[in-house]
Amino acid sequence: MSAGSLSVVAESVVRIGVLGCGTVGASLLALLERQSATVNSRTGLSLVVSRIAVRDLSQKRSVVVGADVFTDDALSVVSDPSIDIIVEVMGGIEPARGLVLAALAAGKPVVTANKALLAAHGSELFAAAEAAGVDILFEASVAGGIPFIRPLRESLLAEPVVRVMGIMNGTTNYILTRMSEAGADYSEALAEAQALGYAEADPTADVEGHDAAAKIAIVASIAFGAKVTSADVQCEGISSVSADDISFAQRHGYAIKLLAIAERFSLPGSDELSARVHPCLIPNAHPLAAVRESFNAVFVQGDAVGDLMFYGRGAGGDPTASAVLGDLVDAAVNLQSGAHASLGAFVPMPFRSNDELDAAWYLSLRVDDRPGVLASIAGVFGAHGVSIDSMEQHSLSGPETAADEARIDLIIHPALERDVRATLVSLGELESVRSLGSTIRVLIDADI
Amino acid sequence: MSAGSLSVVAESVVRIGVLGCGTVGASLLALLERQSATVNSRTGLSLVVSRIAVRDLSQKRSVVVGADVFTDDALSVVSDPSIDIIVEVMGGIEPARGLVLAALAAGKPVVTANKALLAAHGSELFAAAEAAGVDILFEASVAGGIPFIRPLRESLLAEPVVRVMGIMNGTTNYILTRMSEAGADYSEALAEAQALGYAEADPTADVEGHDAAAKIAIVASIAFGAKVTSADVQCEGISSVSADDISFAQRHGYAIKLLAIAERFSLPGSDELSARVHPCLIPNAHPLAAVRESFNAVFVQGDAVGDLMFYGRGAGGDPTASAVLGDLVDAAVNLQSGAHASLGAFVPMPFRSNDELDAAWYLSLRVDDRPGVLASIAGVFGAHGVSIDSMEQHSLSGPETAADEARIDLIIHPALERDVRATLVSLGELESVRSLGSTIRVLIDADI
Repeated sequence: MSAGSLSVVAESVVRIGVLGCGTVGASLLALLERQSATVNSRTGLSLVVSRIAVRDLSQKRSVVVGADVFTDDALSVVSDPSIDIIVEVMGGIEPARGLVLAALAAGKPVVTANKALLAAHGSELFAAAEAAGVDILFEASVAGGIPFIRPLRESLLAEPVVRVMGIMNGTTNYILTRMSEAGADYSEALAEAQALGYAEADPTADVEGHDAAAKIAIVASIAFGAKVTSADVQCEGISSVSADDISFAQRHGYAIKLLAIAERFSLPGSDELSARVHPCLIPNAHPLAAVRESFNAVFVQGDAVGDLMFYGRGAGGDPTASAVLGDLVDAAVNLQSGAHASLGAFVPMPFRSNDELDAAWYLSLRVDDRPGVLASIAGVFGAHGVSIDSMEQHSLSGPETAADEARIDLIIHPALERDVRATLVSLGELESVRSLGSTIRVLIDADI
Repeated sequence: MSAGSLSVVAESVVRIGVLGCGTVGASLLALLERQSATVNSRTGLSLVVSRIAVRDLSQKRSVVVGADVFTDDALSVVSDPSIDIIVEVMGGIEPARGLVLAALAAGKPVVTANKALLAAHGSELFAAAEAAGVDILFEASVAGGIPFIRPLRESLLAEPVVRVMGIMNGTTNYILTRMSEAGADYSEALAEAQALGYAEADPTADVEGHDAAAKIAIVASIAFGAKVTSADVQCEGISSVSADDISFAQRHGYAIKLLAIAERFSLPGSDELSARVHPCLIPNAHPLAAVRESFNAVFVQGDAVGDLMFYGRGAGGDPTASAVLGDLVDAAVNLQSGAHASLGAFVPMPFRSNDELDAAWYLSLRVDDRPGVLASIAGVFGAHGVSIDSMEQHSLSGPETAADEARIDLIIHPALERDVRATLVSLGELESVRSLGSTIRVLIDADI
């Protein structure tokens, strides 16, 4: 074997350090093993996992690498000069943040699936990667296996993107699907999701929208080149969505979904942003309405490209590992050619208050079931300049219901949220209104 | 101004030659004008259109470049040493092929939207780009504005992709949507599509599936690293889909769509491919069933990532220009960094004959309406080992129908196409069978 051919072999090997070996890490190792010949034939590169940092060395693992590859010293993996690329699949903010920064500072590209880290410290990490002239890639952090971040960063770099709306949390979409298709109420559907392993014992991060909020913060950053963190995202979850709400929505041709939305409002001076998570009634003809079970989908609206949607598995070991491997190949190819994918600058941009957002709403009230009540309610809407699109009244009876009570469900035409909130306050002050129930936004046809 | 800053400015300008200035070319020029500041702030590059080759210099054009930019000598654009990148949006095979090859030979990256050219001569062009070490990018050639080719080439490079199924022709999807939602028959829906400009006066290329066949040939090449041309694609169109077929499908929970399918069968020795276009009954719960009007969608099944779908506008000036601009920015960034996106090798791969494909089918027959006929028909299926899933019989009457005639519609369980064809031949030989009607494949739940 000549020195020449040796050097060719040496150049084509890319050594990888993996931080964390949970579900995603183990799936990644298995996928790398299975696909290494394909990667080699398509890129000329051999991806080799040299070191894997884990918390507990004594834990038994069913992965296809030698035991000597494992270490419990994560920093030694990051600082090992023989390692070319770092894959961070340990999760959490620290020590992940410190390790990623150390890797970037050492000139190593980083692939991460860590949404919490990026949503909190994205612009710091992006700036560190830019300063070091290396890649930070994070496809798996937003919608699991769906290739969405790369198309957004690259294919749509020059597209005037106006809005991104996503079903970015599989747990809540599973719960809402079961409520809709099996007639389950919220707590039954949640229990089912927990039994299937889709929801945690403490489901707060999913059902209150925090998981989706972290993802939409990352999306808003990339789509609009803005500094956006989880803390900037207005967040409402699905725990108050009732079987009655689902049933009303179905009767009127809607599905209820938890949407994460990032939107840019073009203004003569500086543009404004909105980043928010809330449940929404979506017309059945809209492609997002057909996203069932634990699937995710991201809907993008651009002035030139029109409507796009990216659909797939938002979680799970294999789909997430697929996204990590896609990034890893990209980082390895870039490293060989000396290139890296620049993220550009992230600038602070003012947020538009939810009060100033225009939306249609579905509202539900419990009222006295007697003549004149409907007229007084309609009067309150009129006084606030809020226009009613459709209204339904049902007399209620039964052991849990006070006598002479009715439920009024209505959909209002688009109005400023401030005016809708003021209307609700005034309605609450009416003697005939016993309680204010659901208040859920409605995606109208003009938004499609 | 110092020589240093001059050289910085000079380096950041990328000069573009555009071949063709029809709908897509004009949309591209307008989009470039609008988005040049965004491109500059995100990449540091100024994209400048230096020359535009058109057939007829005297034609008036509402584009935002000086008249001196136009020429009717396309080869002079390709060979102009001051031009860095060529955008080919003229369409057709020649002279586009010769011009693209000349550009690549001169070391210029090429962005093209030309599906006919790529479907016929893709591997020649890819090899020429590889030999020259420059990019050939063609996002707009397959699904208009949908970023699909880049995710497939890059994000999914290492994914074990098993099958790609797409609604890749907007005209036929519009026709099928109108037949389904407005109860139109085929000729009415086609006339409506023609009136709206969705279908050509001669609609053959769309309705007989040739347009989709060119696109799936390109997709199969990229997904499987195989040499596939339009001529390799088995192709059936929608012109024989009837209102009765649509109505049967709807009653049984299906939508009828024209699918373009590329599939890989893993075998111990060499893998086999199938590339085909045909109408298909799709269960309503499948995301492809919800793709309405003239929208396109591409559904990808991978062993690791699971199911993915990419949805959007498959045609039109602005969406197509969006995809061309995305490629153009990519080519410009790569050119600056000296990198290019390698396509890898394209190898010949054997095709599996349709006869050997397993599929469920919907079949429709006209038969004598008398006792014993159903039994004799069921007997023919049994004799060929083809199992019936469900069957419906309707007595027919009316001026266009012979007396004592019935229509039998059935869905059969998955069977080899060879056996289904043999069954149809035997059915045709039965005295009681007056005519064989529709034969349309059915996507079954196991495929989802």
